[in-house]
Amino acid sequence: MTKPFQRVLLVSKYRDPSVLPGLQRLRDFLLAQDIPTFLETQCAVDIGDSLGLPLLSFAEANADADLVIALGGDGTLLGTARQTAQSGIPILGINQGRLGFLADLSIDQVSEVLPPILKGHYQQDLRSVLHAELWRGEECVHAGLAINEVLIHKGGGESMIELRVQIDGRFVYTQRADGLIIATPTGSTAYAMSAGGPILTPALAALLLVPICPHTLTARPLVVADTVEVRARLTASRQSAALSLDSHYSIPLEIGDEVVIRRAPCSARLIHPEEENFFQILRGKLHWAESPGED
Amino acid sequence: MTKPFQRVLLVSKYRDPSVLPGLQRLRDFLLAQDIPTFLETQCAVDIGDSLGLPLLSFAEANADADLVIALGGDGTLLGTARQTAQSGIPILGINQGRLGFLADLSIDQVSEVLPPILKGHYQQDLRSVLHAELWRGEECVHAGLAINEVLIHKGGGESMIELRVQIDGRFVYTQRADGLIIATPTGSTAYAMSAGGPILTPALAALLLVPICPHTLTARPLVVADTVEVRARLTASRQSAALSLDSHYSIPLEIGDEVVIRRAPCSARLIHPEEENFFQILRGKLHWAESPGED
Amino acid sequence: MTKPFQRVLLVSKYRDPSVLPGLQRLRDFLLAQDIPTFLETQCAVDIGDSLGLPLLSFAEANADADLVIALGGDGTLLGTARQTAQSGIPILGINQGRLGFLADLSIDQVSEVLPPILKGHYQQDLRSVLHAELWRGEECVHAGLAINEVLIHKGGGESMIELRVQIDGRFVYTQRADGLIIATPTGSTAYAMSAGGPILTPALAALLLVPICPHTLTARPLVVADTVEVRARLTASRQSAALSLDSHYSIPLEIGDEVVIRRAPCSARLIHPEEENFFQILRGKLHWAESPGED
Amino acid sequence: MTKPFQRVLLVSKYRDPSVLPGLQRLRDFLLAQDIPTFLETQCAVDIGDSLGLPLLSFAEANADADLVIALGGDGTLLGTARQTAQSGIPILGINQGRLGFLADLSIDQVSEVLPPILKGHYQQDLRSVLHAELWRGEECVHAGLAINEVLIHKGGGESMIELRVQIDGRFVYTQRADGLIIATPTGSTAYAMSAGGPILTPALAALLLVPICPHTLTARPLVVADTVEVRARLTASRQSAALSLDSHYSIPLEIGDEVVIRRAPCSARLIHPEEENFFQILRGKLHWAESPGED
Repeated sequence: MTKPFQRVLLVSKYRDPSVLPGLQRLRDFLLAQDIPTFLETQCAVDIGDSLGLPLLSFAEANADADLVIALGGDGTLLGTARQTAQSGIPILGINQGRLGFLADLSIDQVSEVLPPILKGHYQQDLRSVLHAELWRGEECVHAGLAINEVLIHKGGGESMIELRVQIDGRFVYTQRADGLIIATPTGSTAYAMSAGGPILTPALAALLLVPICPHTLTARPLVVADTVEVRARLTASRQSAALSLDSHYSIPLEIGDEVVIRRAPCSARLIHPEEENFFQILRGKLHWAESPGED
Repeated sequence: MTKPFQRVLLVSKYRDPSVLPGLQRLRDFLLAQDIPTFLETQCAVDIGDSLGLPLLSFAEANADADLVIALGGDGTLLGTARQTAQSGIPILGINQGRLGFLADLSIDQVSEVLPPILKGHYQQDLRSVLHAELWRGEECVHAGLAINEVLIHKGGGESMIELRVQIDGRFVYTQRADGLIIATPTGSTAYAMSAGGPILTPALAALLLVPICPHTLTARPLVVADTVEVRARLTASRQSAALSLDSHYSIPLEIGDEVVIRRAPCSARLIHPEEENFFQILRGKLHWAESPGED
Repeated sequence: MTKPFQRVLLVSKYRDPSVLPGLQRLRDFLLAQDIPTFLETQCAVDIGDSLGLPLLSFAEANADADLVIALGGDGTLLGTARQTAQSGIPILGINQGRLGFLADLSIDQVSEVLPPILKGHYQQDLRSVLHAELWRGEECVHAGLAINEVLIHKGGGESMIELRVQIDGRFVYTQRADGLIIATPTGSTAYAMSAGGPILTPALAALLLVPICPHTLTARPLVVADTVEVRARLTASRQSAALSLDSHYSIPLEIGDEVVIRRAPCSARLIHPEEENFFQILRGKLHWAESPGED
Repeated sequence: MTKPFQRVLLVSKYRDPSVLPGLQRLRDFLLAQDIPTFLETQCAVDIGDSLGLPLLSFAEANADADLVIALGGDGTLLGTARQTAQSGIPILGINQGRLGFLADLSIDQVSEVLPPILKGHYQQDLRSVLHAELWRGEECVHAGLAINEVLIHKGGGESMIELRVQIDGRFVYTQRADGLIIATPTGSTAYAMSAGGPILTPALAALLLVPICPHTLTARPLVVADTVEVRARLTASRQSAALSLDSHYSIPLEIGDEVVIRRAPCSARLIHPEEENFFQILRGKLHWAESPGED
């Protein structure tokens, strides 16, 4: 379908020694196929071993590699996707434990599914990415990408926060809640789902706003076009508030701070051996189509 | 903005004599402006009076008129939109009682808002329309349009029904429930909202699937691109089942029947004096942004 | 624990010939134990065979038998419980297919679990029963019992109904919805659960009110003491409305009709070989404690 | 109805100088009626003024006073109720701003409603109280009371926590969520409502368990008898976890910690000028009985 991959970067779950056998297995398989293979620099540092592979940072890989294989769960894939979204380098997710929504291949399938993929026979699955900026007065004090969701929440405090939300300059609501999730379709099966949101198919050109424990009965999830700009200003908070991207890190917020969220111009490029069947994954993961008492 | 309207069709809520003063007021206002004005044929039959206006059926109006003014609530506007969607003739909704989601002008605003609209100064608001076909074996036994939603439900029976749902040929789930709503964004604030669905902004290119009282804990509303084809086959029903478009009429279903839903190639063309502020309507109608205890 | 059973009535799912082998198996087992065994009269009519057993109506059994064994699913057990609630005769539910919330023994367990039960070694599980009266003006036109729920719904029509609800003479709300469920704790895992209600443990002294597709965002399930009197008056309905007890039959309602619901002075007396573990049943039936992706 | 009050303790919202005029008004009114009146010690410290009143701590008031008047919102009343629950001294809540669920009298009603209450003409409203113990190994490291809810949550971390929940020694579920709320009926209109729980009438003999953002689709609120013992053990937490009573303070939890919750043997004794109409309060606070578009 497309041209074969020439240079592969291996990435794994950070600080988890249990990934080592899987990494070795991937390395051995790739080298046996004569594919130049690299290990991600920070990953080698965390493991304390290069596995005998040359190292490449994400920045270098974005320029030099043409495939990233991420070994771990959905979290590993999310992190890899944030690092590579701007270059659009393809990512193949391989899971060691139970299958994820995103990393849907198991390590035991490697010898079967990898050869055709390496020759260029695969399906692409572009996932939209959010770009969030944190504005404090006239200054943008932070910016970052999220594959699942941008989360504004009450941080370590117990008091709810108050957010004034605008979409394309129009006032939507003042929400008093534990937090607000602004999710991509990819994120609709993650934290947004726990907070009561609907499920969006991955390719839908939409963003999803879901409040967390809203202090009102009239809140509802809201689905908007992914061309909009969402602005959420922290208007009240008695204790603390924080901004979080993909629940990866948290940045403390001050009253008056404004978070501006847009769809990023780039996308995460996931690849699969064949066309992904989203509904099959949903059924498997969410016990869909199962009625009470059915086994 | 666009050219002035030349020929206006008046439509009102059927079988409701209370609309008469409003219709007369609209007639008098339009004739005073020298605008050729017609009354919808069935409407005249229901009222038992032509109000001294020449009559025009919807079919004729679709060819001959260039504006429809619908007097009544959201239900009147929905019916008018179904009748005119294929021609795309603009519709102005005017409300007598409380304002609706769709009919957002009051009869008392007529003298103020109508003159600029008639001169062509207005905003268009295109609403997607669903096209549903009911297949029984090899035969399409019914087809129709819906502005809010296509509803497959248990009819007058008390037993839930079982539906096998496919999207673009892919199996989604077998749903045992009181029914299933397939809604447009316009319909997301109607019956789909009562059934627990999220709110979609009107222009979002999406369809919404919401089960009604599903016999499972794992059901969730599903939002998909509006380019898909949804197929729902009635696989079990102990008593009755029915298909309903905009809750306007009900067609009994037989086991094995399949309902095929796609976005219609046409749109309903609503017009407003100025750009509609959807979030303002939401806040007003849904008591959004109100917290418990706030007055 | 208690005295042995002397006279046993067999009841089975009506109009379902597949229960025949199970009934024969139960009959043979009981007769081999020298237990006088009877078949419920209507059941024999439906099967078209007495199985060689003497017949007993429910009315006779309430006076003469000391155990009812109900073969079928939860529906069979509910019907048996409504018929026997006033006498309080114990009911043992035996399932042929998949286990239910109520009928939690399988036909294959009979030879193992029945002997100790027949000797009086069992646990009782009293389930509260609702008594509903339908008042039309000054006249009570219907009265009946429900084990799961009293349901007031829109019947075969498509238009929602409006109910004015009072509890112990105090106005609660005017609900515009597809219907209203007033459920026992037993019913909290039935239709009330599909409509979004919470789960109540079986012995909780409470009633549960859950609206169906309420036309408001501010509705919430309501849990009240089981000593109250709930009154629901049909204040508006454009097409139809109906009262239903345990979804067993439907009685058409007229505008102005009032349904008065109280806990009945009797209880359904279910028995089990050992103390029932409600949470275990919940986990098994509802896939509780399963997270997305866990198998 | 009961005997007149002899000694009144005034309490107000801590650290909020805006309560001062209200306190003075209450003081002047009570002294004019020749009622011995005291100011709560900590309250005087926070205000920096005794208002010329003798001081009494809660411990002293529990022994010596026979009425507490709490000036502030629901939070002030909750704190007062926790301090006085063990003595059962009556509490009258008076609100300065908007009315609360609990503090339902306004400061402007004082001269009208207080005289009959002081003479003993009032209604009592007993609210159940939760007692929570935190066990670390063999040691109970903390114990406290809650009027609204016991909350076990993820603290300042972003990772959900895992709780193993038992009721009366029976395993209920292992919940992976942001937290778990164990609420009284009083608390059902507080945080439990934001998390999606049902509403319980105040006198219902029940506890309510509501998970916060559960990582499963099959979670449902659970309502159990208030005679049970709930045990929740923290079985996993990647970052932090905390125990909180009425969201008043937070105690960090360690993995393996077990929180044991029972209904306390005491109750909070709220008083009202006349019998409280809970449903009226609900309607007023929650916009009940309002449909979309109704004003």
